[in-house]
Amino acid sequence: MAFGSFIKFFMPKDRVFYSLFEEVTGNLMQMGDIFVAALDEKDIDKRTQMLKMLEDLEHKNDEVTHRIFIELGSNFITPFDREDIHALTTSLDDIADYIWGSAKRLTNYYIHDVDDTVRLFADVIQRCIVALNTAIMRLRDMKDLRAITDACVLINSLENEADDIFDEAMSKLFAYCSDPIELIKKKDLYQELEIVTDKCEDAANVVESIIIKYA
Amino acid sequence: MAFGSFIKFFMPKDRVFYSLFEEVTGNLMQMGDIFVAALDEKDIDKRTQMLKMLEDLEHKNDEVTHRIFIELGSNFITPFDREDIHALTTSLDDIADYIWGSAKRLTNYYIHDVDDTVRLFADVIQRCIVALNTAIMRLRDMKDLRAITDACVLINSLENEADDIFDEAMSKLFAYCSDPIELIKKKDLYQELEIVTDKCEDAANVVESIIIKYA
Amino acid sequence: MAFGSFIKFFMPKDRVFYSLFEEVTGNLMQMGDIFVAALDEKDIDKRTQMLKMLEDLEHKNDEVTHRIFIELGSNFITPFDREDIHALTTSLDDIADYIWGSAKRLTNYYIHDVDDTVRLFADVIQRCIVALNTAIMRLRDMKDLRAITDACVLINSLENEADDIFDEAMSKLFAYCSDPIELIKKKDLYQELEIVTDKCEDAANVVESIIIKYA
Repeated sequence: MAFGSFIKFFMPKDRVFYSLFEEVTGNLMQMGDIFVAALDEKDIDKRTQMLKMLEDLEHKNDEVTHRIFIELGSNFITPFDREDIHALTTSLDDIADYIWGSAKRLTNYYIHDVDDTVRLFADVIQRCIVALNTAIMRLRDMKDLRAITDACVLINSLENEADDIFDEAMSKLFAYCSDPIELIKKKDLYQELEIVTDKCEDAANVVESIIIKYA
Repeated sequence: MAFGSFIKFFMPKDRVFYSLFEEVTGNLMQMGDIFVAALDEKDIDKRTQMLKMLEDLEHKNDEVTHRIFIELGSNFITPFDREDIHALTTSLDDIADYIWGSAKRLTNYYIHDVDDTVRLFADVIQRCIVALNTAIMRLRDMKDLRAITDACVLINSLENEADDIFDEAMSKLFAYCSDPIELIKKKDLYQELEIVTDKCEDAANVVESIIIKYA
Repeated sequence: MAFGSFIKFFMPKDRVFYSLFEEVTGNLMQMGDIFVAALDEKDIDKRTQMLKMLEDLEHKNDEVTHRIFIELGSNFITPFDREDIHALTTSLDDIADYIWGSAKRLTNYYIHDVDDTVRLFADVIQRCIVALNTAIMRLRDMKDLRAITDACVLINSLENEADDIFDEAMSKLFAYCSDPIELIKKKDLYQELEIVTDKCEDAANVVESIIIKYA
């Protein structure tokens, strides 16, 4: 494909974007794993330490995001449309923000006993991130478009799963929880977790639109 | 107008966008009508069935949205600026999402008795959608720019109306409602309904900016 | 710099953007000052009058925002990338919206006694706006890029400060507040105030990306 060959000529400068995106999804993979592990940690001090690691990873992610925007501002040639790079960067950054937002709620709301809904969300989020990492890793050579599309389709179906988890949790909460402060805490935590999967879907949609333009 | 004549030459390919946008607003018209009708339905089973229809329409809308993005990715020629098509598609999709989000809250929060505030919102939303449909239908030939502008101005004033409904409802809620769970339910439902009108305004603003560039 | 000289040639038409952005930040400066003053006003009638002034300024801001979008639609030549003008305009408009949103919550939730958290937020917001105004004023001649960057860095650190204020306030609220309706009011107000600083950071990030492209 003509445009594909054309961009390869500029490899040294524009390939930096692939490395930066891979750094971001590598970071998100770690965040997903630590978040799931933190939920299983019964010792509150140890759990707090793990959540602190999420804060560090979120800051690290902010820095990579910043570097992508600097590259975007100073590079004339980019591997995909500038607005796609912008949208992808923003949604990946949002994923880190909302994972860290969910973790903070566990601490700030003194939620010590993690319920099944939170675990279900954490599992879906972890699977979304793995799929996103797969898709991003294959953008570099664009050899296996099928694998990229499959990963995006999977993320879309995981986001639907998260919607169902959320709806069922809300319906149960308003049916059985009579303590309003407890209800506020859980409702707010579930919403934050659900947004993580929305942001994964946003990222997947950008990846899909990059693929469409390339194909 | 030069650019207008130029795009007509490419009609077969780029005109698909008009049909897709008209499909979306046609869909939204149905959603607005069903939502208003569901609020008047006293039989909870029947109401649940009507709300289920909203879910189907929201899914249908997701599919059309997806098709617009695919067309946008694969068509070199578009009838308006690409970023306007993107922004318009996103805001129209958000309208469907938040109508469905409002409907789900009625069910998940077990809100059986619909209050006047909800009815006022539903009426404003329905009128916003009718105006949006009028504006979108006239984008195709761009013959009556005045009618498009009028529809956009109307949507802006309806959004202000929705803001006032929201503020008055909040002020009443915090003055008279002493049941915190009741308050949480209503505050959350009203917020979701108010966002529907915000998204209608976003869509109207994109339409207006398309008109400005054309004129 | 070539592009810089090039745009100067078109000064009469594209310089309107500088004036409009300065009008917006001048407006925001007033809103920040009035908001801080309103919090110190013990007389509820006088405070209500001051909050009413915020509504007028917010409407005035909407009009300038609208004018920027019209100029953007009709001007072929712009001093920065069109998407940067769009993003900057949107985030500045959001700042006004969320200040007014915060002010409305004080009224609609009948919050007469302003607590330290609200004061801390108002102070951070005021400092963000001053820095933003400094940055915007210097975009016109681009002579002191260092001052613009410093202002953006300051806004980023103020946003971090706001995050810490928010986290500490949440942690205290869920530890000590046993009245659920009181908790709902404060949580919602703090969230709205925190978003003001997020929007200031968004605006600063756009300014930074304008600088990067120019340098």
